[in-house]
Amino acid sequence: MEVEIKFKADRSIEDRIRKLADFVCEKVEEDVYFNSPIRDFRESDEALRIRRDDEGVMITYKGPKVDAETKTREEIEIRVDDYSKAMDILNRLGFRTIRRVVKRRRIYRLGDVTICFDDVEGLGQFVEIEMKSDDLESAKHKVFEIAKKLGFDPSNSIRESYLELLERYIPQR
Amino acid sequence: MEVEIKFKADRSIEDRIRKLADFVCEKVEEDVYFNSPIRDFRESDEALRIRRDDEGVMITYKGPKVDAETKTREEIEIRVDDYSKAMDILNRLGFRTIRRVVKRRRIYRLGDVTICFDDVEGLGQFVEIEMKSDDLESAKHKVFEIAKKLGFDPSNSIRESYLELLERYIPQR
Repeated sequence: MEVEIKFKADRSIEDRIRKLADFVCEKVEEDVYFNSPIRDFRESDEALRIRRDDEGVMITYKGPKVDAETKTREEIEIRVDDYSKAMDILNRLGFRTIRRVVKRRRIYRLGDVTICFDDVEGLGQFVEIEMKSDDLESAKHKVFEIAKKLGFDPSNSIRESYLELLERYIPQR
Repeated sequence: MEVEIKFKADRSIEDRIRKLADFVCEKVEEDVYFNSPIRDFRESDEALRIRRDDEGVMITYKGPKVDAETKTREEIEIRVDDYSKAMDILNRLGFRTIRRVVKRRRIYRLGDVTICFDDVEGLGQFVEIEMKSDDLESAKHKVFEIAKKLGFDPSNSIRESYLELLERYIPQR
């Protein structure tokens, strides 16, 4: 399970992150999201994505969110060796592109927790705090504690994905 | 395009292959084939496969056959880093396992043509002669010439995949 919370932020927050956690790397992530031919992923709360960044290409499936306060969900991810062939295979199998999400992400690490400072094209800055864990309650406690240290109010946690926010605020049609 | 012809063979044929072409390698290929939730691949003549061999894991999509005499079809293939996660993603997306096909394959090379001597679990020995090319007619001519040199009658070319042969001769239910 990927236990994850997200907050709207501005550039000033990054100073606080830097004081708390270790900088890991910066990268530009270019994601393409797909919808399924058998069920509308917007309704089933699933996601299928091809991500391309400096390190390569990944295909990720995300299951429905399992928790009311966080973005926690099953995530299955495989690394693949070719972006355009991966796109072609999904297209041939009937998956259709919903839209592209591009962000500049700076990644920080604090123990087993990852803090991302994201600058998302069209949406602005966000902070994501996440850890992989099957102990949902203890992981939730941990990520919310860090959120509070960064000055966030847990009740402002955003459960919508960047894709959902873009669909809501910047409809394509 | 993958221009490919196949013939039923016996062990004696491998001596002739050895005289004609260079041995490349031997491997055991374990394939799992999937059916689609939106159309029956047996009717649409498509295929989706996860292959595991000594070199790693591949996902392959095969389009419908495009030629009456050969197995020629579009093939799109990506290498992935994790077998069981690849299986999980396809399962979550609604693809269901049809069956497993296991064979010991010895690969020979003759210029840009690949000759495979296959020993397929449940079916016995076959020879596949294939080359990648977008010039279908010239590639067909080339692979059939090699088939004749090996002693095969072109009219005995088998267009069915190992999966189809297994489904026909060794039904699972």
